[in-house]
Amino acid sequence: MEKKDETQHHEPELDQVVNPWQVSAKDGGKIDYDKLIDQFGCQRLDQSLIDRVHRLTSRPPHVFLRRGVFFAHRDFNDILDAYEKGQKFYLYTGRGPSSEALHLGHLIPFMFTKYLQDAFKVPLVIQLTDDEKCMWKNLSVEESQRLARENAKDIIACGFDISRTFIFSDFDYVGGAFYKNMVRVAKCVTLNKVTGIFGFSGEDHIGKISFPPIQAVPSFPSSFPHLFQGKDNPRCLIPCAIDQDPYFRMTRDVAPRLGYHKPALIESSFFPALQGETGKMSASDPNSAIYVTDSAKDIKNKVNKYAFSGGQDSIEKHRKLGANLEVDIPIKYLGFFLEDDAELEHIRTEYGAGRMLTGEVKQRLIQVLSEIVERHSKSRAAVTDEMVDAFMAVRPLPNMFN
Amino acid sequence: MEKKDETQHHEPELDQVVNPWQVSAKDGGKIDYDKLIDQFGCQRLDQSLIDRVHRLTSRPPHVFLRRGVFFAHRDFNDILDAYEKGQKFYLYTGRGPSSEALHLGHLIPFMFTKYLQDAFKVPLVIQLTDDEKCMWKNLSVEESQRLARENAKDIIACGFDISRTFIFSDFDYVGGAFYKNMVRVAKCVTLNKVTGIFGFSGEDHIGKISFPPIQAVPSFPSSFPHLFQGKDNPRCLIPCAIDQDPYFRMTRDVAPRLGYHKPALIESSFFPALQGETGKMSASDPNSAIYVTDSAKDIKNKVNKYAFSGGQDSIEKHRKLGANLEVDIPIKYLGFFLEDDAELEHIRTEYGAGRMLTGEVKQRLIQVLSEIVERHSKSRAAVTDEMVDAFMAVRPLPNMFN
Repeated sequence: MEKKDETQHHEPELDQVVNPWQVSAKDGGKIDYDKLIDQFGCQRLDQSLIDRVHRLTSRPPHVFLRRGVFFAHRDFNDILDAYEKGQKFYLYTGRGPSSEALHLGHLIPFMFTKYLQDAFKVPLVIQLTDDEKCMWKNLSVEESQRLARENAKDIIACGFDISRTFIFSDFDYVGGAFYKNMVRVAKCVTLNKVTGIFGFSGEDHIGKISFPPIQAVPSFPSSFPHLFQGKDNPRCLIPCAIDQDPYFRMTRDVAPRLGYHKPALIESSFFPALQGETGKMSASDPNSAIYVTDSAKDIKNKVNKYAFSGGQDSIEKHRKLGANLEVDIPIKYLGFFLEDDAELEHIRTEYGAGRMLTGEVKQRLIQVLSEIVERHSKSRAAVTDEMVDAFMAVRPLPNMFN
Repeated sequence: MEKKDETQHHEPELDQVVNPWQVSAKDGGKIDYDKLIDQFGCQRLDQSLIDRVHRLTSRPPHVFLRRGVFFAHRDFNDILDAYEKGQKFYLYTGRGPSSEALHLGHLIPFMFTKYLQDAFKVPLVIQLTDDEKCMWKNLSVEESQRLARENAKDIIACGFDISRTFIFSDFDYVGGAFYKNMVRVAKCVTLNKVTGIFGFSGEDHIGKISFPPIQAVPSFPSSFPHLFQGKDNPRCLIPCAIDQDPYFRMTRDVAPRLGYHKPALIESSFFPALQGETGKMSASDPNSAIYVTDSAKDIKNKVNKYAFSGGQDSIEKHRKLGANLEVDIPIKYLGFFLEDDAELEHIRTEYGAGRMLTGEVKQRLIQVLSEIVERHSKSRAAVTDEMVDAFMAVRPLPNMFN
């Protein structure tokens, strides 16, 4: 079973393309996540797993679990088995620092990872792929590193526990044990294979072709000797959006050949753009996303002006037919960020029946988003350069598993 | 002129193949070095350049210069111009540590580089590409690193000046400034280009495809901030065998796009196998080469038994026709290692005229080689692990240009 090559049995489907650089559905429609699970060969995260998380951690599962934002996984059950037996695991997630400020979609994996860290009391490594962004975008080494530090501040503002968290920039940290693992992985992956997985062409530069091992190796504890040397080879769990799956299909294929555990994954759907759920938000259109730097006025304006409504054209029609919740962005966003299950259900019922109007739903969403952004801004303002240095210091974390 | 792309105008020729992994001539014949200069687009190292080295350094040019072992170059005249004006340059050479012991062919670039360091009083960086050998050969990371340290001892035994020399293992040193330059170079090289230069195929693993930037970046002083930060952007001169030219054609193409000087090259022909001059020595046949670990008895036996002779079949015929010096290996080897020009000329004349027999020439060669190997063994035995650590320490070299 371990020998099965996860990179082989997923032929690209022409009607939707999801990879780290492109997310697009047929005719600009919605991503079919069920089909994606088939295509990638991962598993659906079902209610029994969510109940098991609840039981093992004695806390209510995160709203992103309850609402199906994280909807797919690979071997998450093995992680829970290990945890139940008192074995160790650690978390790995990352960020490609391509922009000055994050938007709410960027915060989702970090909010969820913070929950996982708190719930399971486990160490966490956060990779800032400043090298990737330098290679893919037209960014200099220096600018990529500057953005990495800026983004680190937003990440720290999510409330990670410094005694269990190591944040690193590839430009700073790659080398030594990490670099050796890169080479070990690279030896196991042919050009044909990497082209098959990522769709590289002859015109792509070799930096791109050599990047996948860099994103692969934080999955192996030996890449972090200052954290895990002498520890009992902990498993790794990676919370990420499902477009990152190709990297980890490759990683899971290679891991047993190197004598490492396959990393487990817990994978989210995409946070939709204000204009509608047809892919990821566009970094080039600031009105497609709510940024953590947006003012209350910006948020109000963006939601009222751009958030795609499933409500009907006229009040009469709306009262009669109700809103189409399947396409309604305010309802989607409330599904991500309104914690109160009963209130969300109430809004869905009333809005769906036409008794609540789009304006009222948007009003509630503006409140919810403004609170999140205000809270984040306050935390962010308290993050000093010294804190960034402290999180990024290459150091042991003696209490990371306690 | 700087914009000319050196990687473009050298179509592969089918009658001889010379690249870092393969050296072969048509029908197993000799390498045509004149054709190679045309094919690669480098320049012949002529007498006027050799005279200029003599004049500038006030020492007799090395036997490898006088005898045409180093026969080609790129921009070596620019290096001499810079030196004459009091500007700085540094030397870069390297070794892929694939074997326990070196043979005499391996020593040639190091003997010559030591001469250049002494003659010009310049700093030197020596790259041990343990990552390359791990990727190309079936060697583990650990075994490659062990061989790198063993080979470092043989290199140190050549007599390098520790106050001007930094030896580094890629596995140890890649990272930081070096890694950033790798990424900068990788961004400038497409898969098509690297395939054109090095002949990679889809079955090659991506470690190979991403290696060329690693060999490129020691050409840029910013890859060594502990040596060159704040220094006046010294030029780089690379002594190497001509099969390494593809790496540096690529490097010279990329350098101006990154605002760096193109490295200059001084390039040697290949040291022939005992069995005859049809390429490089074969690592898989220990009788094709004299190793620095060979005993006096080994050397005597190998030269007498395997060194291809240009002498005639019978003494009578030899006295009448003389030896064919063009194919005679003892004469070739004496050309590399017998320092005394007058004695070499005497042997060539007498042997070529049939007045000297193969046995006598071999006898003299055995003396010369035994002396070199004995001297090397003594030096090697005196190299301690502490000396290796000292040469490989990442440290400033305050007197490296004095």
